Amino acid sequence: MTEVTRSRTTVGIVGGGPAGLMLSHLLHRDGIDSVVIDIRTREEIEHTHRAGILEAGSVDLLVDQGVSDRVHRDGYRHEGIELRFGGRGHRIDFERLVGEAVWLYPQTDVFIDLAGARERDGGTVHFGVTEPVVEGVTTPTPTLRFTDAQGEQHELACDYVVGSDGSRSMCRGLVPADVARHHFREYPFAWFGIMTEAPMSAPELIYAHSPQGFALISQRTETLQRMYFQCDPQDDPGNWTDDRVWDQLTRRTAGDGFELRQGPITEKVVLRFRSFVCEPMRHGNLFLAGDAAHTVPPTGAKGLNLALMDVKVLAEVLRRAVRGGEHSALDEYSPRALERVWKAQHFSYWMSSMLHTLPGEFHAFDAARQVGELTSLVQSQAGSRYLAEGYTGWPSQS
Amino acid sequence: MTEVTRSRTTVGIVGGGPAGLMLSHLLHRDGIDSVVIDIRTREEIEHTHRAGILEAGSVDLLVDQGVSDRVHRDGYRHEGIELRFGGRGHRIDFERLVGEAVWLYPQTDVFIDLAGARERDGGTVHFGVTEPVVEGVTTPTPTLRFTDAQGEQHELACDYVVGSDGSRSMCRGLVPADVARHHFREYPFAWFGIMTEAPMSAPELIYAHSPQGFALISQRTETLQRMYFQCDPQDDPGNWTDDRVWDQLTRRTAGDGFELRQGPITEKVVLRFRSFVCEPMRHGNLFLAGDAAHTVPPTGAKGLNLALMDVKVLAEVLRRAVRGGEHSALDEYSPRALERVWKAQHFSYWMSSMLHTLPGEFHAFDAARQVGELTSLVQSQAGSRYLAEGYTGWPSQS
Repeated sequence: MTEVTRSRTTVGIVGGGPAGLMLSHLLHRDGIDSVVIDIRTREEIEHTHRAGILEAGSVDLLVDQGVSDRVHRDGYRHEGIELRFGGRGHRIDFERLVGEAVWLYPQTDVFIDLAGARERDGGTVHFGVTEPVVEGVTTPTPTLRFTDAQGEQHELACDYVVGSDGSRSMCRGLVPADVARHHFREYPFAWFGIMTEAPMSAPELIYAHSPQGFALISQRTETLQRMYFQCDPQDDPGNWTDDRVWDQLTRRTAGDGFELRQGPITEKVVLRFRSFVCEPMRHGNLFLAGDAAHTVPPTGAKGLNLALMDVKVLAEVLRRAVRGGEHSALDEYSPRALERVWKAQHFSYWMSSMLHTLPGEFHAFDAARQVGELTSLVQSQAGSRYLAEGYTGWPSQS
Repeated sequence: MTEVTRSRTTVGIVGGGPAGLMLSHLLHRDGIDSVVIDIRTREEIEHTHRAGILEAGSVDLLVDQGVSDRVHRDGYRHEGIELRFGGRGHRIDFERLVGEAVWLYPQTDVFIDLAGARERDGGTVHFGVTEPVVEGVTTPTPTLRFTDAQGEQHELACDYVVGSDGSRSMCRGLVPADVARHHFREYPFAWFGIMTEAPMSAPELIYAHSPQGFALISQRTETLQRMYFQCDPQDDPGNWTDDRVWDQLTRRTAGDGFELRQGPITEKVVLRFRSFVCEPMRHGNLFLAGDAAHTVPPTGAKGLNLALMDVKVLAEVLRRAVRGGEHSALDEYSPRALERVWKAQHFSYWMSSMLHTLPGEFHAFDAARQVGELTSLVQSQAGSRYLAEGYTGWPSQS
C-alpha cells in the first residue's frame, strides 16, 4: 500500500497559471494559506509564449501587491492604439481620453514574475503533478488528491477549492450540468499569427479594418514583432508562403504613408477562437477563475486581465469569509466577476465584429456599415472614450 | 394630337414627401425655382400615418427655415429615452449628456406643415400625377414628363432632377446597374405595432430588452399611444388577440414598478424592415434623396431625419452651383450625404442588434452579452453620451 501524505490548507488551487498564482499571492498577503498544483511543469508554462496587453489595474496588482515591478522596466507603456480604416490611421489616445494606459508585457513574463514571487515568499506550488482529483466540493472539506513530480501522493483537505485550470478545465466538469450554464459563440474567422525578426513598425498596436479583412500590428521587443491577420478558421499555415503573408499584411495596413517593416518570419500559426462563459462561477466550495470560467476572442486583449480581475475579487471575498467570518461574502463572487466578464465578452465581440470582414450575403453592406461605425467612433470624443474605457479596463466610476 | 404644356424649371423634384417638399422650400428661400410632382394625392399622403422622432437639427430646419413652428406647439420635446433591461429602467438623459433633445412629432404632420408652406409661398407642387417619366439625366437638360391630376400633359425641362420618390423609387432605376451599388441587409425579426386608446405609460420612449424580445413603448398624444414588440417577420396580425398582445408588452417591460397602461387597440400591423443604401446618390444631373437612396430599420428613429439632412446638403450644393456658378459643389453631395447615411445605418443596426433577441445557435450567449453591453453603456457617461449623440443626430463637432 502506497503511503499518502495528508495535509490541510485553506484554499486548494488547481492551475498554476497567472490566475492561480496571483490568487495564491494575494491570499498569502492576507495571511491565508493555499497550495497550488498544476499538471504542467514550470518550464512548460515558461515556454508557452502568449502575447499580453495588461490593463492598468492588472499592472497595479503586480506592482502594488508586491509581485514584481519588472513590468515597469521590461514592459512597454502604451498610451493609445491606432484604428486604421479607409487607408488612414486614427489614434485613440487613452491617456487624454481616460487618463490611463496599458502595458505590452507578455503573459509568459507575468507567469515568471508570479512564480518567482511565490517562490520568494515560500508559497507551496507543485508543478508537474499527475492524476489530480478534486472531491467533495459541496461538502465543508473538499479534498484535493494528486501525485507530485517526485512521485509522492498527496491528499489535501481544503476549505475551498479554486479551479484556475484553463480553458480545458477539469474543475469546471465538477459543476453539474443542471447547475452550470455554458454560453458560447463561435466566429466565422480566425487569426493568422506570425512572429518576425523586424524592427517595430509603430510604437503602439494598430487595429486595421480593410477590404481584405482585419490585421493587427503588435510588438514584442525592439527586434521581434507579432502580427496577425484575419484568415479562414480552416486555413493551414503551410499554405502561406512568406510573400503571401507580407502581401496580405501590407495591403491591409496600406495608406497614409504607413510602412510595414519586414523581417524573417520565425513562426506561423492559425489561432481559432470563441467566446465562452460558464455561469455561475461557483458551485458550493468550488470557485472557477480565469479561462476555466470564460474565454474571449483576442481582439479586445481581455483574457489575462479578466483572469487577474476574477482573482482580485475572489481574494477579497475569501479574506472576508476566512478572516472576518463573513461567509455570505462568497455569494458575491460569481455575480461580481460575471458582471465584468459579460462587459468584457461584449467588448471583445464588439472589437471583433467592428473590425473583421463578416462573411455571408450581407458582407458588402456590413463592410460599409463598419466604416460608418469607425467614422462615428473616431469623430466622437465620447465614442472614443467609451472604447478607451473598455480597452483600459473600465474605471470604477465613469 | 394631345397638347403638351412645355415649361422650364431649375430643379425638377420627383416625390412630394417631406424630403422633396423640404428641398423645394429651401431652394425657394435661396431664390431657386423648382417643381415638385408626386403620383400620390395630397390626401393620400396626409392619411399615411407614420411615427416620427425629429432630431433637433430637423426641428431647426422646420422652424428656422420658416416652414412652421407647429412642432413646438403640437409636438412633445423629449429630453431622453429609457433603456430597460434586467427589469430596470435606465434613463439616457440627452439634455444633460449632449445638451440636445428630440421631438415626438408624426411624419404626417411634417408633411402637412411642408405642403402648407409650399402653398403659402406659391410653390408649384403637382400631386396625383400619372405616368411620370424622367429622361436625359446625363444631359445638361433632363426632362420630366407627366400628366397632372387635371389630365393635362407636361414636359418640364430641368437643369437638375431630384429623386425623392421613396423606397420604391422610380428615379433610382435611372442609375445604371454598373454605376449604382445597392447595399442591403435584412433582419431576422420584425415589429408588431399597435395603436391604442390609452393614456401615456411614460413621458418618453422606452426601449426594452427582455428574455421575450424587444419592446418599444412610444407615444402619440395624451390619449393615443404607439407600441411595438419584436415578432417573427412571417407573423400575421390576425393571429394576435388583444390579450396576447398585452401579455407580451407587459412581460417585456415588467419590473421596477413600471405599469403599462392599456386601452382599446385600434390598429395592429406587422412591420418588416431592412437596411438599404444606393451608392452613389448622384448620377449626372440626377440626385437621389431620402428613402429613394436609403432605408434604415426604425429602431434608431433615423429615416425622416436622414431624408431632411440629405436635402439640407443638397440645397446647399445646388445653391452654390446655381447661384455661385460653382459646379464642382455638386460633387460634394453624394460623399457628404453618404457619410451621415452610413453613420445612421450603423446607429440603426446597433440599436437593433443591441436590443432584439437574435435567433440562431448562439442566442443564449448573445442575450447575456447584450445585457453586458447595456450594463457597460449605462454605467459609462461616455457610452451614454455616444448613444445620445447618435440618437439626437450627431453634433457638428463632438
